[in-house]
Amino acid sequence: MLSLDLNYAMNESLAPCAGMREIAPLGERVDRCLADLRAGGPLKGWVGLPFEDGPAAEAAAFARSLPEGLRDVAVLGIGGSSLGPLAVYHAARHPHVLRPAPGDERSRLLHFLDNSDPDTVGSILEGLDPATTLYIVITKSGSTAETASQLLIAWARASEVLGESARDHFVFITDPERGDLRALAGRLGVRTFSVPPDVGGRFSVLSPVGLVPTAAAGLDPAALIAGARRVAAACLDAPLADNPAALLAAIAHLADVREGRNVHVFMTYSDRLAPVGAWFRQIWAESLGKPRAGGPPAGPTPLDARGATDQHSLLQLLVQGPPDKFVVFLDVRSRREVTVPALFEDLPSFGYLAGLPLATLIDAERRGTAMSLARAGTPSITLTVDDTSPASMGALFFLLEVATAIAGSLYGVNPYDQPGVEQGKKLACGLLGRRGFEEMRAEARNLEDRRSDDLVIEF
Amino acid sequence: MLSLDLNYAMNESLAPCAGMREIAPLGERVDRCLADLRAGGPLKGWVGLPFEDGPAAEAAAFARSLPEGLRDVAVLGIGGSSLGPLAVYHAARHPHVLRPAPGDERSRLLHFLDNSDPDTVGSILEGLDPATTLYIVITKSGSTAETASQLLIAWARASEVLGESARDHFVFITDPERGDLRALAGRLGVRTFSVPPDVGGRFSVLSPVGLVPTAAAGLDPAALIAGARRVAAACLDAPLADNPAALLAAIAHLADVREGRNVHVFMTYSDRLAPVGAWFRQIWAESLGKPRAGGPPAGPTPLDARGATDQHSLLQLLVQGPPDKFVVFLDVRSRREVTVPALFEDLPSFGYLAGLPLATLIDAERRGTAMSLARAGTPSITLTVDDTSPASMGALFFLLEVATAIAGSLYGVNPYDQPGVEQGKKLACGLLGRRGFEEMRAEARNLEDRRSDDLVIEF
Repeated sequence: MLSLDLNYAMNESLAPCAGMREIAPLGERVDRCLADLRAGGPLKGWVGLPFEDGPAAEAAAFARSLPEGLRDVAVLGIGGSSLGPLAVYHAARHPHVLRPAPGDERSRLLHFLDNSDPDTVGSILEGLDPATTLYIVITKSGSTAETASQLLIAWARASEVLGESARDHFVFITDPERGDLRALAGRLGVRTFSVPPDVGGRFSVLSPVGLVPTAAAGLDPAALIAGARRVAAACLDAPLADNPAALLAAIAHLADVREGRNVHVFMTYSDRLAPVGAWFRQIWAESLGKPRAGGPPAGPTPLDARGATDQHSLLQLLVQGPPDKFVVFLDVRSRREVTVPALFEDLPSFGYLAGLPLATLIDAERRGTAMSLARAGTPSITLTVDDTSPASMGALFFLLEVATAIAGSLYGVNPYDQPGVEQGKKLACGLLGRRGFEEMRAEARNLEDRRSDDLVIEF
Repeated sequence: MLSLDLNYAMNESLAPCAGMREIAPLGERVDRCLADLRAGGPLKGWVGLPFEDGPAAEAAAFARSLPEGLRDVAVLGIGGSSLGPLAVYHAARHPHVLRPAPGDERSRLLHFLDNSDPDTVGSILEGLDPATTLYIVITKSGSTAETASQLLIAWARASEVLGESARDHFVFITDPERGDLRALAGRLGVRTFSVPPDVGGRFSVLSPVGLVPTAAAGLDPAALIAGARRVAAACLDAPLADNPAALLAAIAHLADVREGRNVHVFMTYSDRLAPVGAWFRQIWAESLGKPRAGGPPAGPTPLDARGATDQHSLLQLLVQGPPDKFVVFLDVRSRREVTVPALFEDLPSFGYLAGLPLATLIDAERRGTAMSLARAGTPSITLTVDDTSPASMGALFFLLEVATAIAGSLYGVNPYDQPGVEQGKKLACGLLGRRGFEEMRAEARNLEDRRSDDLVIEF
């Protein structure tokens, strides 16, 4: 069960911003958007993923077929191909494994490369023994530069050690037909899974992109799907007033357009859920950070934060900074039981903590923060999950995906494109001398030529 | 050597925002601020830390005195007591240690609790053997709730296992005289280091707060100080036009007040340096996120990002979102050598990567990103360090501390206070029933009573 508490956004006696409380006028637009989502269509394949059991079963069967000797899993990918499975893994597994436990399936560790930084890529790949490692390569297009580089390095190392059987240590997750990774899979005889062509990268966590790494970690991919399916009706069918995804989208949208609160803080009060913040930041920023057709540049800025830690970092700004913030708290009900022992009780800084469960402390900190924000005029909502299991994560992902799609509709933008990122990629290809990017190379050189060394301070 | 490249902020033929290029009028205010910093005074103790060798020598001597058998170090603290040492450790040590190397001092691992989350605190403390662990407890006030809780849990566990000798496994870093942690140190006979009373938490990384954990990790604390000292003159004495700290502050300030760019993106192109983003976010947000005396709420919003990964996450928003962003890139010159092997060259997505050092790839990605931002009208500056050693980190910290102090002066605020965070803390204490917070308890209850269950959606 999830809950969404709207008191500090909608309750007249608690919520500071009147403009955010009048959501009813958005009801019709939300209804149209939901009808549109339910009807499916180009790039809306993600809407149907909670209702498909096949891919999860296939991922589970694949994981069962893995030899016991595989102890590590390297996930090669970046961005939308990496943030989702990372969030599921981090939520379910101990976020602070000091030493892997011996023996059981749970000790299979996942390592996410997630960058082109040679420190990260080199360290992870060199630290793994190919004989006991599974490499999962994820790129929908099959051409992402970072992922292609990671793959070439991993493949060279694995085939040096394992020879022809290297192929059995790789899995490619990519478009079913297009792209160079698909072509390579055929040539090398590597096992593949498909990202449905009508599912974009940042909406792909409930496809094999999230399911296969989840299964490889020894977690149940069907639970991820079941969790999403359980909340699907509430998110896709219910009218605005009863629909948590639509309410989240509508309130966030009104915070921006009526109250000028375009910094949307996503503050997780659980270290296990912290990577959900990075996942949300991507889907919110890439889906909404763009102008309406013909309009000026627009879109909310997501800011992910971690409670209680960032109370010591961002809270000052949230309370006394510009009134441009709206906060979504993400909380969890079930936590590990850790109790503060009664010691040194005569000292006032220790006495009041005696016998306190840490869960009570962090909960009081979150509530105190929401209250002090409300008193300072900053509205917030609180989303709570029961636990950090794959089922809860599936529900959370689907809720936030639907919320993003609805927000796209309310902002009047296409949530599935990202035209702004193409030019930087092309300029990088130009700088690297890639064939076909000669014009971009000239453009990049022209910009470099205009640089002045006088404007570089060395110290 | 560090460098600060201002071309995409100041070069007329490259920089999109004219208002940011006219920095000369700020020269006098910067001069006054620098004179003020050099003169020292209340809460300006951090300015003198690069010139003191004693604390680093003391930290190094302490580390040398540690028994060889201590293999793990738990750092108990939160916020300003944790972010600095975490950044130094993460930068110098491998960010992806899969298994600790056997035998040498380098294998002493640091674990930062940094929250009140029972999952984190319980997992780390239960995973460590007190017999081989050193616990470093850091809180300037001596009363931080999260740190006090962490300490009580760690102490109970350690004294259960070690009896009286538990005291030898603890170090307290706190105010030299005030606070309950100082009192407790005397009672228990625990070794202490002092945070100078005139150094605030978020400016304390060059004090024992950063030096002792650095030394305990087997790194050289004197290098941290030497690095800061090397850049101190450039940051404290030089006039605006030649002063990297002042230029950073002035350009960021003008981006906000002249161009409405109050989202200050801090984008690190090195996974080792990613925690510097969290450290910067704290010092920038807590120091500047407040109104001028009598003025409206104000202050820039820091947004930390990680390149190249977040090109797949935030770049769309930075290019096509509202023109309220200014970007600081943090780059590193020296990287691990990892080369992409020449494989599958007939496939266009792989061919152009053959023989490419990953360092060249990530560098092209950063340059392509800066170029595409400039073309989209978003200004940026690039700060580059030679490497991720403690010396480079010391230089970086001091530069950014001075920049924060100057920005505080330009914004017209006191960078050393954080009045906005007090109320949330007090409300939390009220909720926990701490003695002396009865009024806050009543206030919190009053707010809770006004909550309506109708505004909680369950699904």
